Amino acid sequence: MELLDGKLVSKQIKEELKIEVESLVAKLGVAPTLAIVLVGNVEASQIYVRNKLKAAKLTGINTNLVTLPDTITTEELLKVVNELNADEAIDGIIVQLPLPKQVDEAAVINAIQTEKDVDGFGISNKGRLFCGMDAVKSATPFGIMKLLEAYHIDLTGKSAVVVGRSNIVGKPMAMMLLQENATVTICHSRTKDLGSVTKTADVLVVAIGKAKFIKADMVKDGAVVVDVGMNRDESGLCGDVDFENVAPKCSYITPVPGGVGPLTIAMLLYNTVSAFKKRHA
Amino acid sequence: MELLDGKLVSKQIKEELKIEVESLVAKLGVAPTLAIVLVGNVEASQIYVRNKLKAAKLTGINTNLVTLPDTITTEELLKVVNELNADEAIDGIIVQLPLPKQVDEAAVINAIQTEKDVDGFGISNKGRLFCGMDAVKSATPFGIMKLLEAYHIDLTGKSAVVVGRSNIVGKPMAMMLLQENATVTICHSRTKDLGSVTKTADVLVVAIGKAKFIKADMVKDGAVVVDVGMNRDESGLCGDVDFENVAPKCSYITPVPGGVGPLTIAMLLYNTVSAFKKRHA
Repeated sequence: MELLDGKLVSKQIKEELKIEVESLVAKLGVAPTLAIVLVGNVEASQIYVRNKLKAAKLTGINTNLVTLPDTITTEELLKVVNELNADEAIDGIIVQLPLPKQVDEAAVINAIQTEKDVDGFGISNKGRLFCGMDAVKSATPFGIMKLLEAYHIDLTGKSAVVVGRSNIVGKPMAMMLLQENATVTICHSRTKDLGSVTKTADVLVVAIGKAKFIKADMVKDGAVVVDVGMNRDESGLCGDVDFENVAPKCSYITPVPGGVGPLTIAMLLYNTVSAFKKRHA
Repeated sequence: MELLDGKLVSKQIKEELKIEVESLVAKLGVAPTLAIVLVGNVEASQIYVRNKLKAAKLTGINTNLVTLPDTITTEELLKVVNELNADEAIDGIIVQLPLPKQVDEAAVINAIQTEKDVDGFGISNKGRLFCGMDAVKSATPFGIMKLLEAYHIDLTGKSAVVVGRSNIVGKPMAMMLLQENATVTICHSRTKDLGSVTKTADVLVVAIGKAKFIKADMVKDGAVVVDVGMNRDESGLCGDVDFENVAPKCSYITPVPGGVGPLTIAMLLYNTVSAFKKRHA
């Protein structure tokens, strides 16, 4: 059993980006710029944003933090997004979620220009991914693809099972695995006898948010297991997979923490640099 | 074994639409209008378009056929599409495919306004379907959903296997089955040991374009089999499923012809009437 070390791969990706950004700045005289819109005072959001800002700066990416009161209306927020869309100095825009209840979250996310939607959350990028076209890919599933690639895990013809069907992880994950020629199964809360399905997986990706839900008897010997979960139980942080008992059966498995998590920010930066390069191509 | 009679269900859908259109015309004084853009002189395309025009007229839907020479450029065709987008009298627009080689097909399809894209082929409708939002659904997979519904085939928790991953059938089919809470597997040309996967299907949808490719030993006893194929072999028209040998094992199966085929035009008309209703809501 080998660990899929997301922390290490994330570090490598960020180091490569740093070198690339330096050479882009030397060549073009400007650095990629990421705008982050933070609404309100939710503590978790503030921490996430702080981590994104810090990682961007370490990579040489300029940041532009726009903080807004939690009383903002949809119209006011759309105006901010449209100004950032029009701003030639901005390459990528993310709006930290969740937004306050009075705001139409989908309208705001879909207002971000396709090319600047570096979270890949908008309908346009989802549709492009679905159609196998060039798309900005959601950071978490994209990071998982990079992690599998880093460990030379070939997906062609493999049975890949994705547990969870969210728009930001499960469904785009399924599309990315399909694009790499895996045979893909999507499971969810209504799946009957989940274990019998997960047991067929050569590659199992779990994103359901239930602590230690996937047990050893639900996993095939030699499987590659990717755990997107991040839960807190009596023993501390844990994933959706019962790591202690599942790991011995696996060929590869992600730890939690230190698996998928660190890749999300790295891929957000990757998407920002890609957007910058396309705008300056 | 019961046949899934697409011809019958299609007839019912068209009859219901006819009554609905009559009442809409009585209430609003205008009928839904479908614009069909036909480029060049490909015989198959001309036949398809003629069938669509005929079915639309029988349903009380106005049609507007725009025929264009096969020497047309992308820019000229985009101009036509944009005029139809702007035309208040047009509710739905389809551009008959394939287009001549010099035309950027994706650019043309994606130029159709989301609400008027009654084939549901554009990125925007694909993205909306992917995200589980209100979308214009591609006629063929949408027709299959209507067919399963007509026979009260519940999909929740069922194992659904889709063979084929095209943007207009396989992938949207998978998304629609997922939305109805099936556990969905997508297979394709790179799938290893296809039969062992198809054999797990409670509901098997086949769209690969290979005559009689799915044999009896690849199908579970009691399965529901939907055959999207339409091939010609020495004995005439046939599907992707070896009907003669597979049918006895099934609980339900579509014949070819008379299964999925007739539903495609019916759902195109359905989408046109829906677009009209939304515009007049």
